[in-house]
Amino acid sequence: MNDGASPSIPQLLSPQNATDLFHSVDAFLFDCDGVIWKGDKLIDGVPHTLEMLRSKGKKLIFVTNNSTKSRRQYAKKFHSLGIAVTEEEIFSSSFAAAMFLKVNEFPPEKKVYVIGEEGILDELELAGFIGLGGPEDGKKMVHLKPNYLFEHDKNVGAVVVGLDQYINYYKLQYATLCIRENPGCLFVATNRDAVGHMTDLQEWPGAGCMVAAVCGSTQKEPIVVGKPSTFMMDFLLKKYQISTSRMCMVGDRLDTDILFGKNAGCRTLLVLSGVTTQSTLQDPTNDILPEYFTSKISDLLNLLGP
Amino acid sequence: MNDGASPSIPQLLSPQNATDLFHSVDAFLFDCDGVIWKGDKLIDGVPHTLEMLRSKGKKLIFVTNNSTKSRRQYAKKFHSLGIAVTEEEIFSSSFAAAMFLKVNEFPPEKKVYVIGEEGILDELELAGFIGLGGPEDGKKMVHLKPNYLFEHDKNVGAVVVGLDQYINYYKLQYATLCIRENPGCLFVATNRDAVGHMTDLQEWPGAGCMVAAVCGSTQKEPIVVGKPSTFMMDFLLKKYQISTSRMCMVGDRLDTDILFGKNAGCRTLLVLSGVTTQSTLQDPTNDILPEYFTSKISDLLNLLGP
Repeated sequence: MNDGASPSIPQLLSPQNATDLFHSVDAFLFDCDGVIWKGDKLIDGVPHTLEMLRSKGKKLIFVTNNSTKSRRQYAKKFHSLGIAVTEEEIFSSSFAAAMFLKVNEFPPEKKVYVIGEEGILDELELAGFIGLGGPEDGKKMVHLKPNYLFEHDKNVGAVVVGLDQYINYYKLQYATLCIRENPGCLFVATNRDAVGHMTDLQEWPGAGCMVAAVCGSTQKEPIVVGKPSTFMMDFLLKKYQISTSRMCMVGDRLDTDILFGKNAGCRTLLVLSGVTTQSTLQDPTNDILPEYFTSKISDLLNLLGP
Repeated sequence: MNDGASPSIPQLLSPQNATDLFHSVDAFLFDCDGVIWKGDKLIDGVPHTLEMLRSKGKKLIFVTNNSTKSRRQYAKKFHSLGIAVTEEEIFSSSFAAAMFLKVNEFPPEKKVYVIGEEGILDELELAGFIGLGGPEDGKKMVHLKPNYLFEHDKNVGAVVVGLDQYINYYKLQYATLCIRENPGCLFVATNRDAVGHMTDLQEWPGAGCMVAAVCGSTQKEPIVVGKPSTFMMDFLLKKYQISTSRMCMVGDRLDTDILFGKNAGCRTLLVLSGVTTQSTLQDPTNDILPEYFTSKISDLLNLLGP
């Protein structure tokens, strides 16, 4: 989104502009991976920063593209890291996928084939849908031999693709057959992140990898429900009744978090604790510019005081 | 390629134009999957048609995008189906990948990581290169846990991606790390076919699926050595010393075979025995038009006589 004038240069967060931002915002939307944690390790100063924001009356909302967990599983992960967060404060792309089907009145008697992990199947079940595939198909093999016909369920009306560390040829063929052969079958992507910090020490192929594979075999493009699509924003708005102009999206990715914030009309803050470096941000080829940037969210604590 | 005028309408092969084509061509280039066989089943009338063409002095050349076999393995497959073809008459994308590295003076002390099957590793070895990955990594698992670092060989200077029915997250991470982290690492795709007749009864995700996955995680585009790239044509021309205008490319795919033929300046004949239907050919959105089309290659036998 462009305001019509030339894009503004991102400002390094300072005591002055952090204070201005703080007072003009009612809710902080945080991405998780690269902002709150990396893999299973908290990023420095996160608990105190979140406590400070809560104590000053700010709403905290967690918007994550990682679909491997359901909202329930994410709440557990927060708790295990010593942070009190409720399921209702979490908007994961696994939840978004289930809600997309709900909003679009996907017939509950139809089935959903999943390339992805537990989180998607959990959210589908909570929303009243029948999911197939996912972890259960992780060890299935195919045997390419004469007269072999790979069968698929003609009653699958949607394929949901997210990050899947158990991706295999069986699942790729299953999803491909459903999308190519079942009339009207939807192709839903939780998100298209190229890579993510699945572990604390390094990046790994993200949902963008699995989604691209299915695009490659079907030559179709998916409906994306995670960031930067603003699909999740409708739920947020209904729940919190806060104008997007009084929300600040805090994330570590330009093409998902910051673009999502800008697309939705939020304020935007890039943190450099995840995948984006300052040189990537300031590279002349980058045209996704946050309003502010800083090294990590605990800078807010240092700049604003406890 | 366009001759400057409006594109000609593809002609159904007839006794008259088949005879004209036959006399104006010295070499027939055949795609294999969907033209010669489907999976492991010969398409009707193939052996007699090839014998007739050979007996009338035509060169036969087999140009396949399927990288799962080496030229040696393809020759065996032809023999097992009762067709006499030599290795030298076969140009597979597995061979093309190895030749691409050779022509570009890839240092033999560097290594090549393979997402793909035996064919690529065989051809790399025959060309004097050290291949890693492929079938050997088919059962490897990853364990996403704290402090786990996935190691990769910094000496890998090229990643070759082809069809891999044993695709998994281990291989995707390995290839992604090499391409993203090893300076100058090449990303070579054998081809980008979306699907192929890996079995006789149905289509399965093709190399385009695996290649797209690696594009998705690396956000890089590969160098494609198979059809429709004309890389293999240089070898053909060196070997056979026939002008491309006196070659006819016979294939079942518009976006690989026919485009390859047109890009190289060959005559083109589409057969409907594989993935392309007459309605796809004649759909107004299709702009890849062969000179001729017919149902299967044995129509040549029927139209020209024995």
